[in-house]
Amino acid sequence: MKNLYGIFPPITTPFVNGVLSIEKLQHNISIWNKTKLSGYVVMGSNGEAVLLTKEEKLKLIEHTKLFSSSEKIIIAGTGSDSIKETIALTNSAANLGADFALVLTPSFYKSEMKHNNYIKYFSEVADKSKIPIIIYNVPKFTGVDIEVETVAELSKHENIVGIKNSTENSRQIIEFVSNTEQDFKVIVGTASMLFSGITSGAVGGILALANIAPNQCIQIHKLIDEKNYDEALKLQQKMIPANKAVTSKYGVAGLKYAMDLLGYFGGEPRIPLLPLNEKDKEQLKHILIQTEILR
Amino acid sequence: MKNLYGIFPPITTPFVNGVLSIEKLQHNISIWNKTKLSGYVVMGSNGEAVLLTKEEKLKLIEHTKLFSSSEKIIIAGTGSDSIKETIALTNSAANLGADFALVLTPSFYKSEMKHNNYIKYFSEVADKSKIPIIIYNVPKFTGVDIEVETVAELSKHENIVGIKNSTENSRQIIEFVSNTEQDFKVIVGTASMLFSGITSGAVGGILALANIAPNQCIQIHKLIDEKNYDEALKLQQKMIPANKAVTSKYGVAGLKYAMDLLGYFGGEPRIPLLPLNEKDKEQLKHILIQTEILR
Amino acid sequence: MKNLYGIFPPITTPFVNGVLSIEKLQHNISIWNKTKLSGYVVMGSNGEAVLLTKEEKLKLIEHTKLFSSSEKIIIAGTGSDSIKETIALTNSAANLGADFALVLTPSFYKSEMKHNNYIKYFSEVADKSKIPIIIYNVPKFTGVDIEVETVAELSKHENIVGIKNSTENSRQIIEFVSNTEQDFKVIVGTASMLFSGITSGAVGGILALANIAPNQCIQIHKLIDEKNYDEALKLQQKMIPANKAVTSKYGVAGLKYAMDLLGYFGGEPRIPLLPLNEKDKEQLKHILIQTEILR
Amino acid sequence: MKNLYGIFPPITTPFVNGVLSIEKLQHNISIWNKTKLSGYVVMGSNGEAVLLTKEEKLKLIEHTKLFSSSEKIIIAGTGSDSIKETIALTNSAANLGADFALVLTPSFYKSEMKHNNYIKYFSEVADKSKIPIIIYNVPKFTGVDIEVETVAELSKHENIVGIKNSTENSRQIIEFVSNTEQDFKVIVGTASMLFSGITSGAVGGILALANIAPNQCIQIHKLIDEKNYDEALKLQQKMIPANKAVTSKYGVAGLKYAMDLLGYFGGEPRIPLLPLNEKDKEQLKHILIQTEILR
Repeated sequence: MKNLYGIFPPITTPFVNGVLSIEKLQHNISIWNKTKLSGYVVMGSNGEAVLLTKEEKLKLIEHTKLFSSSEKIIIAGTGSDSIKETIALTNSAANLGADFALVLTPSFYKSEMKHNNYIKYFSEVADKSKIPIIIYNVPKFTGVDIEVETVAELSKHENIVGIKNSTENSRQIIEFVSNTEQDFKVIVGTASMLFSGITSGAVGGILALANIAPNQCIQIHKLIDEKNYDEALKLQQKMIPANKAVTSKYGVAGLKYAMDLLGYFGGEPRIPLLPLNEKDKEQLKHILIQTEILR
Repeated sequence: MKNLYGIFPPITTPFVNGVLSIEKLQHNISIWNKTKLSGYVVMGSNGEAVLLTKEEKLKLIEHTKLFSSSEKIIIAGTGSDSIKETIALTNSAANLGADFALVLTPSFYKSEMKHNNYIKYFSEVADKSKIPIIIYNVPKFTGVDIEVETVAELSKHENIVGIKNSTENSRQIIEFVSNTEQDFKVIVGTASMLFSGITSGAVGGILALANIAPNQCIQIHKLIDEKNYDEALKLQQKMIPANKAVTSKYGVAGLKYAMDLLGYFGGEPRIPLLPLNEKDKEQLKHILIQTEILR
Repeated sequence: MKNLYGIFPPITTPFVNGVLSIEKLQHNISIWNKTKLSGYVVMGSNGEAVLLTKEEKLKLIEHTKLFSSSEKIIIAGTGSDSIKETIALTNSAANLGADFALVLTPSFYKSEMKHNNYIKYFSEVADKSKIPIIIYNVPKFTGVDIEVETVAELSKHENIVGIKNSTENSRQIIEFVSNTEQDFKVIVGTASMLFSGITSGAVGGILALANIAPNQCIQIHKLIDEKNYDEALKLQQKMIPANKAVTSKYGVAGLKYAMDLLGYFGGEPRIPLLPLNEKDKEQLKHILIQTEILR
Repeated sequence: MKNLYGIFPPITTPFVNGVLSIEKLQHNISIWNKTKLSGYVVMGSNGEAVLLTKEEKLKLIEHTKLFSSSEKIIIAGTGSDSIKETIALTNSAANLGADFALVLTPSFYKSEMKHNNYIKYFSEVADKSKIPIIIYNVPKFTGVDIEVETVAELSKHENIVGIKNSTENSRQIIEFVSNTEQDFKVIVGTASMLFSGITSGAVGGILALANIAPNQCIQIHKLIDEKNYDEALKLQQKMIPANKAVTSKYGVAGLKYAMDLLGYFGGEPRIPLLPLNEKDKEQLKHILIQTEILR
């Protein structure tokens, strides 16, 4: 098993006139390949996974693997409420070269999603998956928040190797780290939590911001590893406004527009997401300049 | 277009050893066919729609149509965040005989799901759908609640004919009724709201409870039409505990167990949902007896 | 005990240059005295109760009683998290002529406010109160929502005579009515719920809108009593936009500005509430004209 | 102005048969006086401030000051929605020897509590207060969460010197630190956030856990100051279960029972809070033993 460590962008999915563009995907990956990013997450929330068809998903995994340098780790987002679809897509992803599957917590029947439900669901997915599973906890999208006790128990399954946690709660990060098995990996899910997460025992980050500022994210991680907390915190402080801009403030549309400004292909998101208006574009550009991501 | 009026059960999906059972579906529909139910909703939330594969969904629509008496209206739940999948499934449902499509509000990117996003999404789905669209608003599952202004604007689209609203908010029901086009239909989404909804101008209900107590639901509607509000309210009061038991309290597993007790086939829900334990089964049975649904 | 029935405005508290104005209070009450309002709620949420000092509260109760016509019922808002303060203020209100005390659910320690906590709290307040208690449930302000089971049990206390429920949930209204003692009164807490609440068994309303449109509120109630549901619903539909304007949309500041437009004294709310800006004033005025409250 | 730095317990309020016990207060403070705690917060959330009468509050401040060693900083919780009461109590606290006032964000009119409301409210309180103000942000109790931009602006007021932030969000802590004036102090409000908060630039903590484990809290702070992050994190991990037990899990009643077990006087909380049952007492005791707070 490849070493789950470091910074991964949940790569955006490029559309040209609404159609998945493999060419633009190649363009973006060729730039990221030159960085020290540990790998790529394809079909994460920022990849508009829930807006894609099954055919598009398979095509995306296949070509992400194809265009990535050999040392890059490929993580495929394969989870949905349907356990059958999740297992099938996970194994298709494995066949197409994915190293890990990132499996969203089921969440439609919110009030019923308790300890036993998650134990059953993730255990069965992990039992039947050809590749190791990473749990994906993202309450702002799912409306549910997996319990520490549940993650602790799931960490005993040999095919469940980590959790991507996209909250900003560092007590939770510390508990995920200290209550799970020794080799279980905790990964932060937002660049604003990189400093607190890594200092608390997380091993890396799957970060929207890493699409546009991979080196800064890698640098925060590196500074902490070198025990240079002061510099790490300074860089973290500087990155928060940029991270908010391409996540909570302007969403996937903002992230894609930032990519357009920075030499990547961003393009427009798919309906029901909408592109930014001109005023928001100006403000986002201004934030990228202020944070020295755009020079 | 068939007249959207009356009571519809969002029929449960029968599994035998985890496999969709067409035989059990036929058994259930043959019982419901004998009632004055206006039709069936296949692949609603109570139909575990989000837990099914695409193949299972098509099979379900096809056979629901096949087994239903000719006068019954077939409404197929076809919505998901993916507009492409939604349009494709909607038109497949149309080809298989569905009269209407029930389209869930997209909800993954919760904080971005605003007026314009819903206008774009539903307008495009409606433009491309061969059958009329009913908007499906169910905040307890989606975590989003569509605005009155948005529904008002969407009601002007000739292929968007109604909304199933699954909240318990009767101010919202009144606003949906009074702010939309004359022929736009408001349908309540929970049996506990039948009295308030129908008196407020709703034309019917898509009700989990109608799977097990179709006649009582029809009777409440009928009493209100006859202006016999006192009797309607009495029956409504009586049905609330039963409705809570098969929805918020025990969920789909509870609804299915109640069906087993009443001569239908219920069976077990699919993971991540779990069957009831023995204590919950006893309590549910007790409630069904108290409310005279089970005698 | 006076008969708890009909429409009550939670009267606003008039400030002139930030100082409680007894003169303006008299002006307003003298207008309301001419209507068929059943009485007045002093120190409700719309009375800015939580922004007042204890001295102001006593002065308000005393003068509200003094200026009210003899047949009007006086209900004083006396609840806070502090049971000692609540009991003391309740009995002061009683001594000053209040007929009932409206006691807010304690809510600071939200996650701990469960069945037993409310049973203990309300039972002790009721035991020690000289006047009957009305429970006040208003989740939008308190962040807690009292359970039906709790209200059912509290309704057995001879000195707990009713509940003002300020949600828009009509299933809850029906349950409060059908699960409590025969003579326990359910009162709706927002004019948008008047139609659904009264048809469901509520006996009246404590309604911000009744400050500015008392006759329309009384008329909705009357039409329902006369079984003229169609006309009642029409008037209810018409009043919803006005009610939203003076509650959720523009708050107490909006309600007070509306009063200024209609011959009452409104004035400005107290910090941290802020007066409306000019644009909001224009829009509110427009809504009052459209709903024919302002002619 | 005294240096706002280090660990402060929000001291519990001792009741004997429901009556404030000055003797038990003295007992507790005499133990805490022997530690390196920086001072005491009287009438915080854990001090059941909202359950006290005004007379009890004044008595509490007076005696806390009286019993404290001279070097201890006294912070008095004085905030409520009523700006008049807040200013009056703040200045009474100042007269009785309090060094700082901890002022809760007003929160009753939740949906209206925006930037301008807080600017007006806190500026006026600070203008009129004889002692410096610390903003108190505690969404789990108030249901509101103050914006970074608002705190940034308020930090410019010379009499607003810090914020106690009781969330577990470390992105927010970093933003409060990096967006406010140089000498503005950020204080964490829960022991589970001590490690992340202090490493992110906070200067100390007001921590329920410091009532029963003052030395461990002080040690975490000290280890971070010495750049011994590994040991600090280990101790933080160890303290989380104990902290959860005396806050989210068992609340003030749990904290008080833990005090009883550890040589302090805890006693029972006041209604609507309720004492622990025997089973919860056993579990809490077990947690205290496991975390080596109780030996």
